[in-house]
Amino acid sequence: SASMDSGDELRQKYMEFPYVSGPHRDLMVELLSSVETRLGSSLQPCTLPPHVRHFGNPAGTAYACIQLRHGLPSSQIDFILGGWIHSKLPSGGALNITSLSGYLNSSTDAPNFRLELIQSIPTSLILVLDLTPRKDLILHPHHLKTYYEDTLLDRYRQRLHMLPEVSPYISPSLYVRAAVSPTAILVSIDVGAGETTNIEEIIRDHVGPVAKELLQFWIESCACTERRVGEPETAYLAERDRIIKNKTIELDLGSSFPRLFGQDVADRVLTVLKEHYNK
Amino acid sequence: SASMDSGDELRQKYMEFPYVSGPHRDLMVELLSSVETRLGSSLQPCTLPPHVRHFGNPAGTAYACIQLRHGLPSSQIDFILGGWIHSKLPSGGALNITSLSGYLNSSTDAPNFRLELIQSIPTSLILVLDLTPRKDLILHPHHLKTYYEDTLLDRYRQRLHMLPEVSPYISPSLYVRAAVSPTAILVSIDVGAGETTNIEEIIRDHVGPVAKELLQFWIESCACTERRVGEPETAYLAERDRIIKNKTIELDLGSSFPRLFGQDVADRVLTVLKEHYNK
Repeated sequence: SASMDSGDELRQKYMEFPYVSGPHRDLMVELLSSVETRLGSSLQPCTLPPHVRHFGNPAGTAYACIQLRHGLPSSQIDFILGGWIHSKLPSGGALNITSLSGYLNSSTDAPNFRLELIQSIPTSLILVLDLTPRKDLILHPHHLKTYYEDTLLDRYRQRLHMLPEVSPYISPSLYVRAAVSPTAILVSIDVGAGETTNIEEIIRDHVGPVAKELLQFWIESCACTERRVGEPETAYLAERDRIIKNKTIELDLGSSFPRLFGQDVADRVLTVLKEHYNK
Repeated sequence: SASMDSGDELRQKYMEFPYVSGPHRDLMVELLSSVETRLGSSLQPCTLPPHVRHFGNPAGTAYACIQLRHGLPSSQIDFILGGWIHSKLPSGGALNITSLSGYLNSSTDAPNFRLELIQSIPTSLILVLDLTPRKDLILHPHHLKTYYEDTLLDRYRQRLHMLPEVSPYISPSLYVRAAVSPTAILVSIDVGAGETTNIEEIIRDHVGPVAKELLQFWIESCACTERRVGEPETAYLAERDRIIKNKTIELDLGSSFPRLFGQDVADRVLTVLKEHYNK
């Protein structure tokens, strides 16, 4: 059973992305490898219990793999979270989600990283890719300038929006809409059933390069560039981060996990994740 | 000349909207009348000098009318700003902007109101319609719930998005994107040249009803519902409001007025507006 897997097996399973297409898997593996190469020495090993690292629903139709690694106290990283979810759909298809998030701690005010690829039909993909702000950008216009304007971050969004298959995706959650940055890539990529382009090619040729560049930027300019944040600001960041992390569990995972894995499994996993998010 | 107009003439010119279509004018007049009827007794007369209430460029190809009325000290209103801009375009067409904004003071944390209709070609219209938040909605989830979730504000956006002519409008300004609420209506309405529907019908049948309902909601539930905001919060609101007002002048008016009216006229008008915004 999943709960008997060893650490190595769990790590392997996590990197396997067994249910998504080749280009989708290649992209995720490349992103996780960048994190490992550049940030690995700043991270603690994953201490999630095995039943949270890999689990499924009682019916055996849904599986997930999660890895959470806290940053070392000397680093600016709170934790890096990655994972995948696979669930068979009653329609015969499957829902596949792969994600990678980077949360920084309150020694810096640099943005967090967030990537999510959500696919429930072969001809369509929802992409969420953002450097999520950790400060109110209205009250802190300098922050908007430093991280979003001077860096020309919007060019990545613009590049994807030039594709005819790409259209804005509007999240049903008002919280999610409020939490993203003004350069957030929240798009739906749709290829018609009879078209010559397919989602795999768009992931390989367009989503991949943008995701890799943005992650690279986040690692170098956000996670690894030291910022000196003063005491009142640390408290502000810590409080805002606390809200963000708990809202993410409550709204994002909390709304989908019970549906996908049943209430018991969801409760067990979410309780542990909540503890680890707030460590 | 414009600077010799009397108060009555200026008020009449302001309500005239001489360069836009019938349904567009009807909508603006109806909105201004709602403000007058419901809030008029809480507002001071417009004290802008005549050369700011109505002005044009030296070449006589661009005109504008602005009215700014501060709230009485007993009210929750900072000021109500309305106006229109008309500018002939080198292409032979014209740019027409009509707008109405309501800013509240720091005795309440309720959102501001913002409406803008921007038209530069007969077959297309940009609509900005929002209850702009005055607090960081991440740090204040209760505020998101009170004003945006529990009120089902998103239904207005959804209603307009059901029209095939409507698509999301993404502002080139990252500040504007960051300042809007998660239920903001920022859309481009495009009717093909050969289509049977025209922009005027869409304003009358769809934009109008939504704008009127939202203004009604803002007047009753934001401007006229008393909120008791404590001292530290008043200071927070005052500071955030100050930034918003100055950014609006700098980015919105400051970037377009010199182009439309020449640097001299723009400087004269913007200096006075800035004073009045910060009164």
